Amino acid sequence: MNDNTDVFDVAVIGSGPAGISAALTLNAHNKSIVWFGTDMLSNKVEKSEMIANYAGCEMISGPELNSRFRSQIRSAGLELTDRMVTQVSKYNEEFMLLAANRMYKAKTVLFAIGTVPDKGVKNELELLGHGVSYCATCDGFFYKGRSIAVFCSSKRYEHEVEYLAEIAHRVYLFANYTDIGIKADNVELLDKPIKAVVGDRKVDAVRLTDDSVIAVDGVFFLRNAVAPTTILKGLQMDGPHIAVNRDCCTNIPGCFAAGDCTGRPYQIAKAVGEGNVAAHKITEFLANKRD
Amino acid sequence: MNDNTDVFDVAVIGSGPAGISAALTLNAHNKSIVWFGTDMLSNKVEKSEMIANYAGCEMISGPELNSRFRSQIRSAGLELTDRMVTQVSKYNEEFMLLAANRMYKAKTVLFAIGTVPDKGVKNELELLGHGVSYCATCDGFFYKGRSIAVFCSSKRYEHEVEYLAEIAHRVYLFANYTDIGIKADNVELLDKPIKAVVGDRKVDAVRLTDDSVIAVDGVFFLRNAVAPTTILKGLQMDGPHIAVNRDCCTNIPGCFAAGDCTGRPYQIAKAVGEGNVAAHKITEFLANKRD
Repeated sequence: MNDNTDVFDVAVIGSGPAGISAALTLNAHNKSIVWFGTDMLSNKVEKSEMIANYAGCEMISGPELNSRFRSQIRSAGLELTDRMVTQVSKYNEEFMLLAANRMYKAKTVLFAIGTVPDKGVKNELELLGHGVSYCATCDGFFYKGRSIAVFCSSKRYEHEVEYLAEIAHRVYLFANYTDIGIKADNVELLDKPIKAVVGDRKVDAVRLTDDSVIAVDGVFFLRNAVAPTTILKGLQMDGPHIAVNRDCCTNIPGCFAAGDCTGRPYQIAKAVGEGNVAAHKITEFLANKRD
Repeated sequence: MNDNTDVFDVAVIGSGPAGISAALTLNAHNKSIVWFGTDMLSNKVEKSEMIANYAGCEMISGPELNSRFRSQIRSAGLELTDRMVTQVSKYNEEFMLLAANRMYKAKTVLFAIGTVPDKGVKNELELLGHGVSYCATCDGFFYKGRSIAVFCSSKRYEHEVEYLAEIAHRVYLFANYTDIGIKADNVELLDKPIKAVVGDRKVDAVRLTDDSVIAVDGVFFLRNAVAPTTILKGLQMDGPHIAVNRDCCTNIPGCFAAGDCTGRPYQIAKAVGEGNVAAHKITEFLANKRD
């Protein structure tokens, strides 16, 4: 495992409006940032035909707003690390983040992961690490010559599916989008969704919604985000959202959250505002630690 | 007194980023709005040389951002009512707002008044309505041929000072900005600030910081905003800010607050975000009332 021995001031998870707003402000405050997310930025923004109520950007299309965001990120000299964070743990006063088989350390963490995904299918969490994986590059090599199921939530993960197809003997693909561009011969696209992972101490199969069962050695869920309580144990939720106060603090000192993951309204303005507030509160938190 | 007999869904007080964001969203939700503020918009934004961290607007000057705001307001068909709200009271389930001698009714009120002004000088509140006034057009005519002191906080109130100078015999002017453009012969500009209003049941004089006393019949304080607890009795504060929860609700049902007046960080992004949240919560509040 490659460890990055730097200890960053902040790890920002997510590159939607909340993460962007936070990163811009933290950067202006000279904080060192490791920023996890994709250069494609928010998919939800990208798919917005027209945004009418974001003050300062009159009647702007989602792709155009994302393109302005990208230009602003570049001008600020910020860089995105395109790895999915699958685990965060707090050790002493530091956070350790695991992202695609690599470890990062940070003094504070900001969750800006967008609407919180549900807890997945039946048995998914129970068999996580025992045949269930969220990370193709981390765990793919365990399945050399074997059969796997892969759930792919978005076109942006297709290169991971193709990577898995190079390693595995057979890939059963489940996708929840159209226009699928994967062409490997050993990939079979199935049209019924996965209902449950089957297995006792390790994955034996997946059960589909029509109750058919397909024997596999492993299952990869390639989603935009993992449920925050799966990533960070002990994180307090408020229904389907991460519980925060007005300062965007979670119940874990040093861990903050902003944007859709903290609750409605699911709006760009709200996310940008909370990203800004979180950045200021993180800066204060770091200053108080130093005292 | 001219009464506007319409009952608006929302009265928005303030035309800075929080008020703009709220008005755009309320308008998108088809709410009827009376919006108090000036077309000059936020003075604090106007004076910003360069704004680097407002997502979507890369390195923008304050005047340019205000100009984008103005264009967006116009395109949305929104109009500003350039009158200062000096009193809000709740009667049954409705709010009554007094603005420059005119009454407005609304089902909900949003305070987006910017950083909360302090409680003014000594005795100011005690003698409000007894010689102390916040509104030249409301109370000017009481001082025909008499001597008055006028505190003017900004160039935008100079026309009100000139209006008072036409009525009064003599005007002692106290300004906290430079580049004063008032030229009336009966206006005397003083360089020491007012320390206290003097008088028992009515204004007799003002005392300056050098302890000199000037006899006057009335004092006008022309400021960007009046302290919210002066405007609306019983409004709960949290130190110098209006106390709100994460939904921008104050302690008074139907009364909301957003932007700098709810606390730090004093940032455009935070104000825009809260204006958006408040607009959504107001929309929910109105929907629940209707049930």
